[in-house]
Amino acid sequence: MTAPDARLVLLQEPVAEGLERMRELLAGQLDEASPAVRDMTGHIARFRGKQLRASLTLLAGEAGGNSTDEHPAVACIVEMIHLATLVHDDVLDGATVRRRVACVNERWDNQVAVLLGDFLYARAFALSTELSSRMCSRVLSEATRRICVGEIEQSTRRYDFEMSQGDYEAIAGAKTATLYGAACELGACYPSGNEEGGARMRAFGYEIGLAFQIIDDCLDVVGNPEVVGKSVGNDVEDGKVTLPVLWTYARASEAARSRIRDAYTLPAEAVEEAASGRGRAELLRSVCDLEPGVEYALARAGELTRGALERLEGLGASQARDALEALGGYVLERRW
Amino acid sequence: MTAPDARLVLLQEPVAEGLERMRELLAGQLDEASPAVRDMTGHIARFRGKQLRASLTLLAGEAGGNSTDEHPAVACIVEMIHLATLVHDDVLDGATVRRRVACVNERWDNQVAVLLGDFLYARAFALSTELSSRMCSRVLSEATRRICVGEIEQSTRRYDFEMSQGDYEAIAGAKTATLYGAACELGACYPSGNEEGGARMRAFGYEIGLAFQIIDDCLDVVGNPEVVGKSVGNDVEDGKVTLPVLWTYARASEAARSRIRDAYTLPAEAVEEAASGRGRAELLRSVCDLEPGVEYALARAGELTRGALERLEGLGASQARDALEALGGYVLERRW
Repeated sequence: MTAPDARLVLLQEPVAEGLERMRELLAGQLDEASPAVRDMTGHIARFRGKQLRASLTLLAGEAGGNSTDEHPAVACIVEMIHLATLVHDDVLDGATVRRRVACVNERWDNQVAVLLGDFLYARAFALSTELSSRMCSRVLSEATRRICVGEIEQSTRRYDFEMSQGDYEAIAGAKTATLYGAACELGACYPSGNEEGGARMRAFGYEIGLAFQIIDDCLDVVGNPEVVGKSVGNDVEDGKVTLPVLWTYARASEAARSRIRDAYTLPAEAVEEAASGRGRAELLRSVCDLEPGVEYALARAGELTRGALERLEGLGASQARDALEALGGYVLERRW
Repeated sequence: MTAPDARLVLLQEPVAEGLERMRELLAGQLDEASPAVRDMTGHIARFRGKQLRASLTLLAGEAGGNSTDEHPAVACIVEMIHLATLVHDDVLDGATVRRRVACVNERWDNQVAVLLGDFLYARAFALSTELSSRMCSRVLSEATRRICVGEIEQSTRRYDFEMSQGDYEAIAGAKTATLYGAACELGACYPSGNEEGGARMRAFGYEIGLAFQIIDDCLDVVGNPEVVGKSVGNDVEDGKVTLPVLWTYARASEAARSRIRDAYTLPAEAVEEAASGRGRAELLRSVCDLEPGVEYALARAGELTRGALERLEGLGASQARDALEALGGYVLERRW
């Protein structure tokens, strides 16, 4: 079996040239004159990661026969918005490590991380104003608004163990899947027209993105930080009750529910003692069997992905379309 | 003598109608469907404040004979960017009160304040993409980038008592005066053309904005929180060495310098004891005479304002031009 990252490179093969151009543009955007800023952008360039969202823009363009000279710039702007959200997410989550590199809030501090995220948003919007069409500015500013609304809603629903799956998905969708959807929509539509194809590809991206977030939430409660490459257990620390836990809680006895709530809410010292210093997620795992909930959540991610793949049926055969299909499997099987 | 706010209303008189329209637009922008977000935007609407930047856009348009139906929307976007920077600034400064209203980070928490600032930026950029010209998106995304760079530079220069006045002004200018400059430039130029007039009005706004920031920095070290309407002493707490202190430090004996540094850097308990619990700014005031430094800084603000007013000479006579001139005096005399 091929390792996940080698598989991703194969998937990205049909748009390798566009991705290379996207990376050049991104490097130029991060090369700010201010030495203080350049230090930080140089640091976050090491997060680089999978560039899944940029790949989606380019693949959606190729697969729909709508690939323009500006698609790499559009993909670059999508990645910059993503980078901005990562930098702010790490502040919000109090995370320390991302893709085996120290987070900005850890390497510098929260203040600087807030500002660097703002800088990345501004830089992304500034680049979008240089494109020939305003579609990119419009779609991505609206997507960013929805991402923020989703994050704020999530923040106010912390410690809500009674949340419905619908509410959970609306929040996870807004905060994560929106950008996947926008990336695909822009690929299919930019610079204009093809509204039906754009709506279809936006739905494809949204469903894949929601599946991605559900898997992320599973990894956060049961994943191994060594394999995942970032700190896990953050959701439990932060009071975010995600699908595998909601499912487990809904089916638990009153006594078990109380133990689950305790894992989220006991004072830090009590958690320290109960979990021998291994944190709330460890305590949560010890007080209930999360496996069935994780299985349920993974099944839901699979269902979403299958729905997404059906949306590709209208597209003609191409390497790019094959890659979009394979991406579904890639997202489902990820354990990083 | 007229009270400051009554004076401001007079200055805003020539654009009262445009400001009213701007406020309606702003209220619509803050009325988000998400109840969690609406709670917060309803709260920050109480910051309202002086809407100086929006007034500058409208006055610069009127004074230059360049007032369009879209100017209130441009002014609204300028105010939203300003609101976003306020919300994030309060997180960065750990401030608790703004315009006699609790800061978002205080009423909710830092997480939500970061997200709400992001939301406001995104909402502002989204609105700018609906205008007939792209100039507003372009000027304001670039201005936002420069604001962030200035803030990051400032953050890395904390506790730098040897900073030159030039470096101080470059940072204060980037973080504050940039938006004043952009507000005036857009007023004079939007939707296109009039580059010379735009550059002149940008310089006017920049100089007024820098004067405003210098006065703000003076108020933070010697102002009365009851009069200023927000917490003071934040710069000293946060290690920001501003013009009145830089001037004082440069002229102080080695022993006095050491006491000044101590006021910024001693452990909190030692400050508590030395200043009888009244904080670092009080300790700073007790170890050196800041008055001459404050006088120097205020004189510099006056010089900047006079330079700004000279830039108005090319404009024909109008109520709006008179108001722009009077604004200089208003900024200089403010003690709020």
